Amino acid sequence: MAGYMPGEQPPPGSRVVKLNTNENPWGPPPEVLEAIRAKTMETLRLYPEPTARPVREAAARAYGVTPEQVLVGNGSDDLLTILLRTLLDPGEVFAAPEPTYTLYEPLTRIQGGRYVGIPWGEGLSLPVEALAAAGAKLTMVTRPNAPTGHVVPLEEVARLCRLCLPHGVVVLDEAYGDFAEDNGLPLLPAHPNLVVIRSFSKSLSLAGLRLGLGFMSRELAWEMHKVRDSYNVDQLAQAGAVAALENLGAVARVTARIKAERTRATEALTRRGFTVFPSQANFLLATIPAGRRDGRAWLDDLKGQGILVRYFGSDPRLADKLRITIGTPEEMELLFQAVDRLLADNGGSSPP
Amino acid sequence: MAGYMPGEQPPPGSRVVKLNTNENPWGPPPEVLEAIRAKTMETLRLYPEPTARPVREAAARAYGVTPEQVLVGNGSDDLLTILLRTLLDPGEVFAAPEPTYTLYEPLTRIQGGRYVGIPWGEGLSLPVEALAAAGAKLTMVTRPNAPTGHVVPLEEVARLCRLCLPHGVVVLDEAYGDFAEDNGLPLLPAHPNLVVIRSFSKSLSLAGLRLGLGFMSRELAWEMHKVRDSYNVDQLAQAGAVAALENLGAVARVTARIKAERTRATEALTRRGFTVFPSQANFLLATIPAGRRDGRAWLDDLKGQGILVRYFGSDPRLADKLRITIGTPEEMELLFQAVDRLLADNGGSSPP
Repeated sequence: MAGYMPGEQPPPGSRVVKLNTNENPWGPPPEVLEAIRAKTMETLRLYPEPTARPVREAAARAYGVTPEQVLVGNGSDDLLTILLRTLLDPGEVFAAPEPTYTLYEPLTRIQGGRYVGIPWGEGLSLPVEALAAAGAKLTMVTRPNAPTGHVVPLEEVARLCRLCLPHGVVVLDEAYGDFAEDNGLPLLPAHPNLVVIRSFSKSLSLAGLRLGLGFMSRELAWEMHKVRDSYNVDQLAQAGAVAALENLGAVARVTARIKAERTRATEALTRRGFTVFPSQANFLLATIPAGRRDGRAWLDDLKGQGILVRYFGSDPRLADKLRITIGTPEEMELLFQAVDRLLADNGGSSPP
Repeated sequence: MAGYMPGEQPPPGSRVVKLNTNENPWGPPPEVLEAIRAKTMETLRLYPEPTARPVREAAARAYGVTPEQVLVGNGSDDLLTILLRTLLDPGEVFAAPEPTYTLYEPLTRIQGGRYVGIPWGEGLSLPVEALAAAGAKLTMVTRPNAPTGHVVPLEEVARLCRLCLPHGVVVLDEAYGDFAEDNGLPLLPAHPNLVVIRSFSKSLSLAGLRLGLGFMSRELAWEMHKVRDSYNVDQLAQAGAVAALENLGAVARVTARIKAERTRATEALTRRGFTVFPSQANFLLATIPAGRRDGRAWLDDLKGQGILVRYFGSDPRLADKLRITIGTPEEMELLFQAVDRLLADNGGSSPP
């Protein structure tokens, strides 16, 4: 089988504008680095707290749950892996509306499960009945979704939970949740089969540390604890996570800047002939303007201009689209200038 | 099912002598901390190199293999999980000589495999024929073994590889390999079905960072890369790992001190009536002297004196034994003093 292929990571020091893997252009709060640098050789030689208790306690305070409802992962990828290893037996179904995050399918195959992709409904609505009818052990809803950036109404997620209750768990992947108008945590008390997953790689700007949080009932969390590696989150990541969770005010200010830039970038690309999906994430999915250059050529020619974006051409539904991470205003300006240069010889639409 | 239970991690600042989880009493080389502290907010916001290439290159230089033969894990636990997820289909056999590291059995069960434990042969010899006859997809040999600390001859490991070649892979878990007289890396070129696993938690004194190395054929490594999480080793761990691998001279000096202390502790415990297995690891397995105090009572009473050791009483073969990590000379002296106090009211053997 082929594995999941993450976006390109150029070597350190490369002079590129990196808008391809949805990282945060602004750094984490300075307290994170201070917490990491406070660690000494005396502490590094010891195993970390096995269950990442300090992180679970900080997350419980920040999000109004109990520490027993929180599971910490070595990135939210680790949490997804733990979920599948805990819940999905060979031959059982993993269902998701499509297109979505391309990791779910290989992950299901590794686990010997059966992946069922259900197309989004009219206007990218959640196909609740079709998803429930799949009888999946795990039903995954990414909200905001990648790569579209759209969100489905929370009431529809709640309805999906109710319909899936007899046969399985619904997972809300909220890697981009902090950029959206609302989130699924308030649904937890009423829905014992709901798991909400958060990542530290986007709004919290700590992709380099590998941290994810899972919120769920304490019973479900207990089952997951038995499956995860005994010490899955290292000491430095635990220290950084606590500092980040204690400084969510600074995180919110950065998130607000990214959302403002998202509005500006949507307008700028639309003016240039792209069709941009309304996004509640830190990226845009943009359909390329008509012309002689196809999606792959846009990807390559932007790279030629020093700008990395993401292209999912192997999915025909996405073959004429680019996914563009929201960078700093300066980075976005460089993108617009490169787009203008390419449009000038596009043989179709022309720059504004 | 019950999960694996790691040894107790007392909260930071506890005044205990921690001889229960085989950590290194001496810190890592100072270059490790410098490499970690050199990381900035600008780097933390970015994903790490997905395949941990800088670590693979440093490991290749240090151990005389190619970077393509190296897989880096979030601890060697992560490597074990990746191995099982890559190679063990439901119902297939995972075999190991017993007693050994107690993680293997729950890990096999999580994966839906069948765990087969084969008792060590006469004089703790490797039961080569019985292991090969189990027809396992994965045969695990821990060398030095935990909790016995003994090593089996490398020629016997080579013979096991040859006998298993038609049906499976042999994994040499060398978490404690640096404390032994020899290791299995020289066997790799002749045995395409051999995997050697190393941990940074023992000799390299980086348990807090979660790092493990797997050495194998490039073909096998490629299959594992498809299964591991895309970014399984974080940036700080990668930086620390490279610094540690570039300073193995300092590591060797620390290892020599631990080996000297191991000899001294073996003699000291033997003088006090314990029977100590000859160990090539950084711990001793000691049979308690006859008397009114059983293994569980020794564990509890030592803890009452501020000294943590490990006890595996649920295995009848180990019910009269304690596993004791080699600490600093000062820590070991505190252990001997506590032992003397307990022996004084043991109702059996008396202190020397």
